[in-house]
Amino acid sequence: MKRLEGQIAFILEIDQLKRVLRQTLVTDQSRRENSAEHSWHLAMMAPLLAEYAAEPADVDRVVRMLLVHDLVEIDAGDTFAYDATANIDRTKRERAAADRLFGPVTGAQGGLLPPEQGAELRALWEEFERGESCDARYANALDRLQPLLHNWKTDGGTWRIHGVRREQVLRRMEPIRLNMPRLWPMVLAIVEEAQGKGWIEE
Amino acid sequence: MKRLEGQIAFILEIDQLKRVLRQTLVTDQSRRENSAEHSWHLAMMAPLLAEYAAEPADVDRVVRMLLVHDLVEIDAGDTFAYDATANIDRTKRERAAADRLFGPVTGAQGGLLPPEQGAELRALWEEFERGESCDARYANALDRLQPLLHNWKTDGGTWRIHGVRREQVLRRMEPIRLNMPRLWPMVLAIVEEAQGKGWIEE
Repeated sequence: MKRLEGQIAFILEIDQLKRVLRQTLVTDQSRRENSAEHSWHLAMMAPLLAEYAAEPADVDRVVRMLLVHDLVEIDAGDTFAYDATANIDRTKRERAAADRLFGPVTGAQGGLLPPEQGAELRALWEEFERGESCDARYANALDRLQPLLHNWKTDGGTWRIHGVRREQVLRRMEPIRLNMPRLWPMVLAIVEEAQGKGWIEE
Repeated sequence: MKRLEGQIAFILEIDQLKRVLRQTLVTDQSRRENSAEHSWHLAMMAPLLAEYAAEPADVDRVVRMLLVHDLVEIDAGDTFAYDATANIDRTKRERAAADRLFGPVTGAQGGLLPPEQGAELRALWEEFERGESCDARYANALDRLQPLLHNWKTDGGTWRIHGVRREQVLRRMEPIRLNMPRLWPMVLAIVEEAQGKGWIEE
């Protein structure tokens, strides 16, 4: 039963993602969102918006990718997108977390899960991080869209709180322009509205 | 763009699942779990434990089913499993919620989503509720297993808080015995330990 024990240990371990707080607010502005519920939200979005993906994505793979994409934050914490300093060593911190949670790239040793299951989750996470495959590009665009929608619905949310500039928002939304181009007019309209209301700086 | 508007409205609407609190505690016992992060946790579990399903399940369908299975709680609230009174009108409340969120069974009118997307989510939710298909039976077993693990890791959690009896727990875990029989010895060992520690009553 060592196999099952490892699987149950991993399932209990990942409960910790529920205490990793992101900068984004939930839409009633009562609190910050955590990375577990954020991941659920993205996984819900993937099938609903698949028709807008620039290239056909394997939606079920994208769902699985989105479910695991933030797991490394259990050790590495959430790094605020607009914090340039914290993003410098983000990769190193997240890679160490992936080694502990999923096992090292080579498989075989380390990690709580049976090696083939750890390797599968690790591969999905690495694919998301590289952002090169169709599936990863679509997943990355969704990961940019959801906080945009939240900031829009929370009177500027983290843009306003952190004094983010229009140019920074547009650069951050670039994966949407490239991978969900039909949503780009909506993104621009939201940014326009946000600027008009003073939620983002020129 | 009416189609996109409806999809975005739905995506923002379901953010409210993050404020539906379950009785279950997160494993560090700092607070109650909400239904969005609970759904994420179950969706993560589905591929990892698929090998223990009594009948082969379509794991990607199970993942999608688990992602939507609690959405109706946005209107109907979470009904505590061991509260017999509240469970009497649960079905009625949840059905009204499904009509509003997904659109009525007939499709065509109502709901925020394009009818075919609303109908697909509704069908998954109905299938989960009926609990008759292979996929739904596996999904239901996971939905019982996760709170069991949490109660175990939080010194009895809601069992202790609400004075739940051994017989009630075992009845509640019945879907695991039937649909993930290889996990049954583990369930019994956890219940035994819980009783030994006084977390559940005889």
